Amino acid sequence: MSGRSIQADLALAQLLFERLDRATRRGAGIVRDTYGPGEQAAHDILRAAAEQIGLEVNVDAIGNLMMVLPGRDRSRPRILIGSHLDSVPQGGNFDGAAGVVAGIAVLSALRQDAFVPDCDLVVMGIRAEESAWFDVAYIGSAGALGLLDPTCLAVPRCDNGCSLEQAIRQAGFDPAPIRERRPLLDPQTVRAYLELHIEQGPTLVNRGLPAAVVTGIRGCKRLRNARCVGEYAHSGAVSRLYRRDAVAATVALLHHLEAFWLQQEAEGADLVMTSGELYTNPVLHGPSKIAGEVSFVIDVRSLADATMAAVIHEARRAAVALEQAYRVRFELGTTSDSPPAVMDTRLRARLMGLLEQPFEMASGAGHDAAVFAQLRIPTAMIFVRNEQGSHNPAEAMTLDDFAVGTRALLGLLLDFPL
Amino acid sequence: MSGRSIQADLALAQLLFERLDRATRRGAGIVRDTYGPGEQAAHDILRAAAEQIGLEVNVDAIGNLMMVLPGRDRSRPRILIGSHLDSVPQGGNFDGAAGVVAGIAVLSALRQDAFVPDCDLVVMGIRAEESAWFDVAYIGSAGALGLLDPTCLAVPRCDNGCSLEQAIRQAGFDPAPIRERRPLLDPQTVRAYLELHIEQGPTLVNRGLPAAVVTGIRGCKRLRNARCVGEYAHSGAVSRLYRRDAVAATVALLHHLEAFWLQQEAEGADLVMTSGELYTNPVLHGPSKIAGEVSFVIDVRSLADATMAAVIHEARRAAVALEQAYRVRFELGTTSDSPPAVMDTRLRARLMGLLEQPFEMASGAGHDAAVFAQLRIPTAMIFVRNEQGSHNPAEAMTLDDFAVGTRALLGLLLDFPL
Repeated sequence: MSGRSIQADLALAQLLFERLDRATRRGAGIVRDTYGPGEQAAHDILRAAAEQIGLEVNVDAIGNLMMVLPGRDRSRPRILIGSHLDSVPQGGNFDGAAGVVAGIAVLSALRQDAFVPDCDLVVMGIRAEESAWFDVAYIGSAGALGLLDPTCLAVPRCDNGCSLEQAIRQAGFDPAPIRERRPLLDPQTVRAYLELHIEQGPTLVNRGLPAAVVTGIRGCKRLRNARCVGEYAHSGAVSRLYRRDAVAATVALLHHLEAFWLQQEAEGADLVMTSGELYTNPVLHGPSKIAGEVSFVIDVRSLADATMAAVIHEARRAAVALEQAYRVRFELGTTSDSPPAVMDTRLRARLMGLLEQPFEMASGAGHDAAVFAQLRIPTAMIFVRNEQGSHNPAEAMTLDDFAVGTRALLGLLLDFPL
Repeated sequence: MSGRSIQADLALAQLLFERLDRATRRGAGIVRDTYGPGEQAAHDILRAAAEQIGLEVNVDAIGNLMMVLPGRDRSRPRILIGSHLDSVPQGGNFDGAAGVVAGIAVLSALRQDAFVPDCDLVVMGIRAEESAWFDVAYIGSAGALGLLDPTCLAVPRCDNGCSLEQAIRQAGFDPAPIRERRPLLDPQTVRAYLELHIEQGPTLVNRGLPAAVVTGIRGCKRLRNARCVGEYAHSGAVSRLYRRDAVAATVALLHHLEAFWLQQEAEGADLVMTSGELYTNPVLHGPSKIAGEVSFVIDVRSLADATMAAVIHEARRAAVALEQAYRVRFELGTTSDSPPAVMDTRLRARLMGLLEQPFEMASGAGHDAAVFAQLRIPTAMIFVRNEQGSHNPAEAMTLDDFAVGTRALLGLLLDFPL
């Protein structure tokens, strides 16, 4: 096919990354606040580029930006190439934006080459993926698909307390579809969803690879408000057998779960576990006191629901045993769950064939792709190597690595398997 | 000996406990603030009782109250019966005061019986034992013995910021002896120091015993500001092998030290270990973040210096090994040390002979007795059963249990072995 010689428009991509950085850097980091001026600035930059290329542009009721290269048969289900344009507070330039810029770089090249796809190709600049501003994830994608719980509209913004509903209105959009659970995007009209994103961990850096195909997005079962309740007492005056030491019991539980993790890993399970918040009560603890209380989080992630369920089951079983041994009470609470999202097997295989150094890996972080995958829309993701993690000002993706990921995306579109 | 039929003045003891409670209860708990009006109120109550009994009363330059039953030979070294009259904020009625009241109950009975001891018997109402108000322990006893570091005079009171020096002056006393490290009490003139105190742990409650003889006061080696430094990262996106998880590493360290404790205990060592403060950084932690930092305390107590040193050595050794395994850095810092204090063997044996249900145990908490013992003054302690721990409003000692301890104290004085 003639299309095979087309190259993504990397010059435009570079220009867009520079513009995005200039417009939304505040001090050290990037601030593209969800439904705020930072996110809007990013949307304006991408929209202007899309119009210049000659794409059709429209914006849905809740602010998602749709930039369309029309296909031969406009009634056919569309291929979406999406990611989000918001960032965490003091984030980096690439988390989210890279996927939208990749889509534009690809459509720009196709447009320049006068390539007409068989269906509409739509780059979707998604709103509000980060839950850092409002404690709600995937507002733009889940909202467009009618999947959001309407009570989320009352959630306050972390810094100024403004509700999500107010923020949507102030940005010039309409919260009614969310309130009414009314889909703006019919899954039947979506042929596939493709997302390029920087890797948020160090795997590609450590392996010396520019890009990877994502096998799936790990689900999460989280004990968000776990507690261990013991009894405060003098650290010197109570012998081991009479202690109700909440720290000792919690250490025993977390140590036990680490051993369980190693065992699961040895059996080939995909699993990560984290206790990222762990604290005695700052009002009541003391250097010469046995702690009567510990609060902690257990965050369990896997591509397999069964693996996560096994960890939570083991945590509850072990907690009961440790309550006896340490004379404490564990209050693990209920899990908040997000299911794993499996990427489409055929799309994965095709993308693997398009990488010079094919490599597959799980995504530990959540992405809008998970929302589409959960509706059984064929979904694929490409990870691009990124130094120093994401969600911080030091995110560092090279244009060369971006080019590798974007080339695979373009290759997939030129010879779409589904 | 005729003295054997003397009974301690329990009616006076009960009256004094009631007066102390009435005068210094503030809301739920007792407030006898160090060098403040609460402590002074307790001193006033004890002094009035001593004068009524007909004891000689004097107060040293830093406010310690000396209530003397003169002996036949007034030039002989004295026997001190002491404890402190301050309390922690919202403490209970018995921690400290019980020992002074016991001394008065004993001297009252001796006086009523016209018993003349061979040397002066002195009940010492000691100032400022609790470090809750000023972060300095044993101000009264260590100050009287010329052992305080003069820089402690600058330490601010926890609630109002007033320096210890100011507080001593405002209470009508003179900080000069502390500033000059000038002893007010010559150890050569002290034949023995005896202290009755409520047990601050649950051992006697659990064993169903009214009182115990103290074997020694545990020393303490404390890593007060230990830290583990890892790297913050996304909880889902970083596989186990690339994590620098400060919580996981700290859990491994504390779990290892618990195993070491069990091993030491199995070998017969006296030891307790506590991590009573343990916390991720509340500004930077998060439920979906690997923790890059944990702060914690390791508090190690034993009757044997060698045991404490072994634990700290093991902690440092294990930390180095775990730094490799978890790719983190431990900053354990230096220990703050207080040496163990061994009680006098002959006094212990005599007290054991005076208990109907003889039982010996270590004191985990510190007491003024430790200061005297460190100067090699023969020292003994009696613990009285106390429900619900100390340093809280719910301290509960019965007068019956107090009578058992006081009887042993009186018996010891009537036939003093040294």
